[in-house]
Amino acid sequence: MKLISLLTDFGTQDCFAGLLKAVILKINPNAETVSLSHNIRPQAVSEAAFILERSFQYFPYGTIHLVVVDPGVGSRRKKLLIETENYSFIGPDNGVLYPALKKEKIKRIIKIENKKYFLQPVSNTFHGRDIFAPAAAYLSLGKDPHSLGKPLGNLDKIKKLDLPEAFMSKNKLKGEIIYIDSFGNLITNISKASFERFTGNSPFQVLIRDKKINKISSNYLQAKQDTPCALFNSFGNLEIAVKKGSAQKALSLNTGETVQVILKNS
Amino acid sequence: MKLISLLTDFGTQDCFAGLLKAVILKINPNAETVSLSHNIRPQAVSEAAFILERSFQYFPYGTIHLVVVDPGVGSRRKKLLIETENYSFIGPDNGVLYPALKKEKIKRIIKIENKKYFLQPVSNTFHGRDIFAPAAAYLSLGKDPHSLGKPLGNLDKIKKLDLPEAFMSKNKLKGEIIYIDSFGNLITNISKASFERFTGNSPFQVLIRDKKINKISSNYLQAKQDTPCALFNSFGNLEIAVKKGSAQKALSLNTGETVQVILKNS
Amino acid sequence: MKLISLLTDFGTQDCFAGLLKAVILKINPNAETVSLSHNIRPQAVSEAAFILERSFQYFPYGTIHLVVVDPGVGSRRKKLLIETENYSFIGPDNGVLYPALKKEKIKRIIKIENKKYFLQPVSNTFHGRDIFAPAAAYLSLGKDPHSLGKPLGNLDKIKKLDLPEAFMSKNKLKGEIIYIDSFGNLITNISKASFERFTGNSPFQVLIRDKKINKISSNYLQAKQDTPCALFNSFGNLEIAVKKGSAQKALSLNTGETVQVILKNS
Repeated sequence: MKLISLLTDFGTQDCFAGLLKAVILKINPNAETVSLSHNIRPQAVSEAAFILERSFQYFPYGTIHLVVVDPGVGSRRKKLLIETENYSFIGPDNGVLYPALKKEKIKRIIKIENKKYFLQPVSNTFHGRDIFAPAAAYLSLGKDPHSLGKPLGNLDKIKKLDLPEAFMSKNKLKGEIIYIDSFGNLITNISKASFERFTGNSPFQVLIRDKKINKISSNYLQAKQDTPCALFNSFGNLEIAVKKGSAQKALSLNTGETVQVILKNS
Repeated sequence: MKLISLLTDFGTQDCFAGLLKAVILKINPNAETVSLSHNIRPQAVSEAAFILERSFQYFPYGTIHLVVVDPGVGSRRKKLLIETENYSFIGPDNGVLYPALKKEKIKRIIKIENKKYFLQPVSNTFHGRDIFAPAAAYLSLGKDPHSLGKPLGNLDKIKKLDLPEAFMSKNKLKGEIIYIDSFGNLITNISKASFERFTGNSPFQVLIRDKKINKISSNYLQAKQDTPCALFNSFGNLEIAVKKGSAQKALSLNTGETVQVILKNS
Repeated sequence: MKLISLLTDFGTQDCFAGLLKAVILKINPNAETVSLSHNIRPQAVSEAAFILERSFQYFPYGTIHLVVVDPGVGSRRKKLLIETENYSFIGPDNGVLYPALKKEKIKRIIKIENKKYFLQPVSNTFHGRDIFAPAAAYLSLGKDPHSLGKPLGNLDKIKKLDLPEAFMSKNKLKGEIIYIDSFGNLITNISKASFERFTGNSPFQVLIRDKKINKISSNYLQAKQDTPCALFNSFGNLEIAVKKGSAQKALSLNTGETVQVILKNS
């Protein structure tokens, strides 16, 4: 087995995700694909970067992560193949791979450019099908990465993208909503670790717009009905939720909204 | 091949379903997964129970059915692994497995609790990823079910959930809409068998709100345009449909709505 | 590996697509399935025909293309298994396979009718599960196509469906929007080849309602913000798009809308 994970903004309405799989299997009939998600919001590079960074390590070592969220398709943005100690990553050079790569030890960075391994004719609108999927498939066949293009040096040579980080000062920990899942849970960029470092054993309040939450629930059921609660979710992030409901609908908030933690005694 | 079917309310908007597959493949690279559905309405335990009960037997014998519709995630509800003569079932003890289990001969019921087989750290919001998917993966590897937890005894020890059953009296057969598919077909809990037992060879009427339907169509095409028709669907249930349209839209009805069959001569 | 591609209008809201895969694996545990799309608009036979015709060749040779967009399910429409030089096609005789078949060299056409290979009892509403998926699975097992039914002769014996073709006259090339993808890109039936044959080296205008577009962009990024642009997409068709936006929303157009190319000097 050689596993290729797929993360795209293609949606599942059209046949584009299916075509990625077709192209991969036509090159390597023994490849296996897993769709991590095809529902990244259209062209939302940083959303995809966040999902990738939080997810890639759940896959078997050796997985090839194929990421196609690519508003610059057809332009001169580079096409990357990056091998790390544990995984390979293939995608456009728009920052989408960067947060995940920062957690890994880089082995080599290749600029994909050998047309011999492209699907011909190469379209200007679907490099996922014509360039990236073939690269993943050839890599899964055991093809030497250097045959696909030229080495690029280190991480400094690729586009950076930093996910918004929570900011900690003496009297507040300030973050924001960075993702809203389909249950309507509001996921912040405040990690459990930074939350605990900030609050220690002191009483605290989580502030979001005019709402104040005084405790961390240990799970959804424990919370009160129809009242926003705060808990640490499966990504290890602070999350605002409504038991058996949608916090997004209840609070009418969107990504980018500020979420603060303050100490009550201060 | 060792097949694991997935039935969840995760949606396909987020990466949660993809993570289940990742976790399974990291433990057992030879496992194979099939998504039965990830679009059970959020926390709709009885909807998932209905879909599972009507679907599990279409899978190859030996399939491990992994069901994660779990509003009680992180609470004290038990986590179950149940082996029957033909299949295995893994999921929360909230009744979701019960209707399917009633159709099977039970071999053993295990309360999953051996932390050695959990993904660490265990989150409070995603036991699908951290407990249930690993259990399915280890089981697919051939791990002894008793190594995952303690035997629980028989079906009396788990939470019951009875799907609403149609009620037959001398002069009427009374059921309800229990599921609406994405075509807008209204699926009732009136089975073909009970319909035929009730009507015999007598003329009948199907009543739904103020609509009266006097015959069973043998297929969608046979029905009149824009007029609700009744037929027996692929689940073997009485269904109200509109040819090339949506009965849900045409009739503005929802699950729970009463559907009655009466005899015309009575 | 024996690959079966799936193209349906089942949606992913229900479990119908999952059941196709279950049925296939119960018959042939070594079959592999790839969902090309399950989101063809309900009963949109010509949309499915278009997607199939543009996609089937991306799959490995030998792939069995299983197409279930079947408004006539349960009626007398024939059920087809067609082998071509490179692929097999299985689906209802409503024209959905026709445009793809025209591009292939036909080897044999079989009318599926051997009940021995149906799932019993056969429903009147889900031949995908009960007839077509089993046929694909048995074929993937190496079963002789003639065991599934009787030969039908040549393509003249099956229902024709011609995708709308662009019309070229001396002073205009007239086509229409035939598909809108989930990004809101408006895909026309004007191929790059016919566009180039018509315009030669002359200046041209693309007309759509009251909009005039004077150039072909080579990719999305190159276009102006918030302004409709024209380009050749990954299907090789002329497409109207809006950079980082939805042309469908911006122009409020639907399939069937006329798109014309005229020469500026004429």
